[in-house]
Amino acid sequence: MTTKPYIHIIQYYETDRMGITHHSNYVRFMEEARIDFLKQAGWDYAKLEAMGVISPVTRIDCKYKVPTTFEDELRITVMVKECNGIRIQFLYKMQNQHGVIVCTGESEHCFVSAEGKILRVDREFPEFFETMKAKSEEHSM
Amino acid sequence: MTTKPYIHIIQYYETDRMGITHHSNYVRFMEEARIDFLKQAGWDYAKLEAMGVISPVTRIDCKYKVPTTFEDELRITVMVKECNGIRIQFLYKMQNQHGVIVCTGESEHCFVSAEGKILRVDREFPEFFETMKAKSEEHSM
Amino acid sequence: MTTKPYIHIIQYYETDRMGITHHSNYVRFMEEARIDFLKQAGWDYAKLEAMGVISPVTRIDCKYKVPTTFEDELRITVMVKECNGIRIQFLYKMQNQHGVIVCTGESEHCFVSAEGKILRVDREFPEFFETMKAKSEEHSM
Amino acid sequence: MTTKPYIHIIQYYETDRMGITHHSNYVRFMEEARIDFLKQAGWDYAKLEAMGVISPVTRIDCKYKVPTTFEDELRITVMVKECNGIRIQFLYKMQNQHGVIVCTGESEHCFVSAEGKILRVDREFPEFFETMKAKSEEHSM
Repeated sequence: MTTKPYIHIIQYYETDRMGITHHSNYVRFMEEARIDFLKQAGWDYAKLEAMGVISPVTRIDCKYKVPTTFEDELRITVMVKECNGIRIQFLYKMQNQHGVIVCTGESEHCFVSAEGKILRVDREFPEFFETMKAKSEEHSM
Repeated sequence: MTTKPYIHIIQYYETDRMGITHHSNYVRFMEEARIDFLKQAGWDYAKLEAMGVISPVTRIDCKYKVPTTFEDELRITVMVKECNGIRIQFLYKMQNQHGVIVCTGESEHCFVSAEGKILRVDREFPEFFETMKAKSEEHSM
Repeated sequence: MTTKPYIHIIQYYETDRMGITHHSNYVRFMEEARIDFLKQAGWDYAKLEAMGVISPVTRIDCKYKVPTTFEDELRITVMVKECNGIRIQFLYKMQNQHGVIVCTGESEHCFVSAEGKILRVDREFPEFFETMKAKSEEHSM
Repeated sequence: MTTKPYIHIIQYYETDRMGITHHSNYVRFMEEARIDFLKQAGWDYAKLEAMGVISPVTRIDCKYKVPTTFEDELRITVMVKECNGIRIQFLYKMQNQHGVIVCTGESEHCFVSAEGKILRVDREFPEFFETMKAKSEEHSM
């Protein structure tokens, strides 16, 4: 069951006076796409939060290749690069409406309880862990 | 004891492709200035939160008179328009580095406990209420 | 031909530490919905810009009634309140996924050439003016 | 002549419902600090733009170590990692008010004319190039 890409239309307020999408916004698009990816995989982020799991970002890496601007349509593909018990890494490929790759990114996350304790998801949320593990293997095939 | 105006320098990411500060950001500048105003009056917003008071915005009104852009220096004057037991209203005057009024605004807030219950600040936080009341009279004189 | 409401799903990055959608973001949602409204009326905002018309916001008024948060679905209805030759006013009604009105707003805009000259759209862009005029009458009926 | 660190106070609207500064904002803080760094070095970004040079971001890398929140004071140190004729790389160290490193980052930029042509700053803006080159050597000592 493959994941559908996430679509983000660039908003006017996301542009800057260079006339292009401000680079900081791509980090937000990655979040939008990641949350959609998790939802499609059956792991609604709000549900994770309700279970007492929060997942802070520990690293972002973003390569800007081609500028975009107002009304451009980004198609964002998300993949799980790796998921061990304590960290998960995602890959992002963002294409514009012409199929051109405009940006690629990576993000890394840990898992923390509401009280701030580091969680080992392989032990405490094995079902979530197995789904993400499987997603990472899809990608490596 | 008069309150010092709050200074906000326009950031690159606050501009849009029209070349000017995006209008939504002024609502954020009003928040920055209001928090600074409360701090100067001895009511640190984080302290209010720690006391279990949150103060959601119930209304914003903003008149845009002159555009600003990257590196412009806004000088924001905040006044208490009115404070009764359940609502507080602030007025904002924003001037650029040349003293020109670029934007004026109003905001209205209520007071809510962490559990979401409406608070009567005149009864529950009389000291805060009196300070704001006094500020509103300064302004009307 | 009636206009379809605009849908905005609240993003994680649009919430604040009060746990709710930050109030400044509604001003951005109004922009998203207004641009979609113009597009549905045949007046793509990028096309207007290409014709040399920009339309700065001169006023925003926003009443916050019920908080929203991450994953809430806003349904935004836009109407033209009034359009004379030099100014246009829009009304916004925002409902959550349960049909509850969470926020109402108004915005006012003028029309300016790329060189910053005020435009009389009734004279210079009569086709646009007539469309907006007709939309304002729809609303008043 | 050493560069003074840049100070950014975390704003309420920069937090998210996890209660911490949203990670995308650090990319904006890096921009604020970089612009301040260039200004201190005598290269006001608005002046660069007026000379017809824009400097799009080609890469961002950000490592989040410790969360921050509303009212925290970030002290951001910027260094030039490398400047060749066509690209410049900056390093960022962000410390909170207790001196703890909360985030480190890197950014990479190219130089483009207003018409979108890649610029060789070593040839076309040798004075800027020499200043950045010198800054990069300071750092490596």
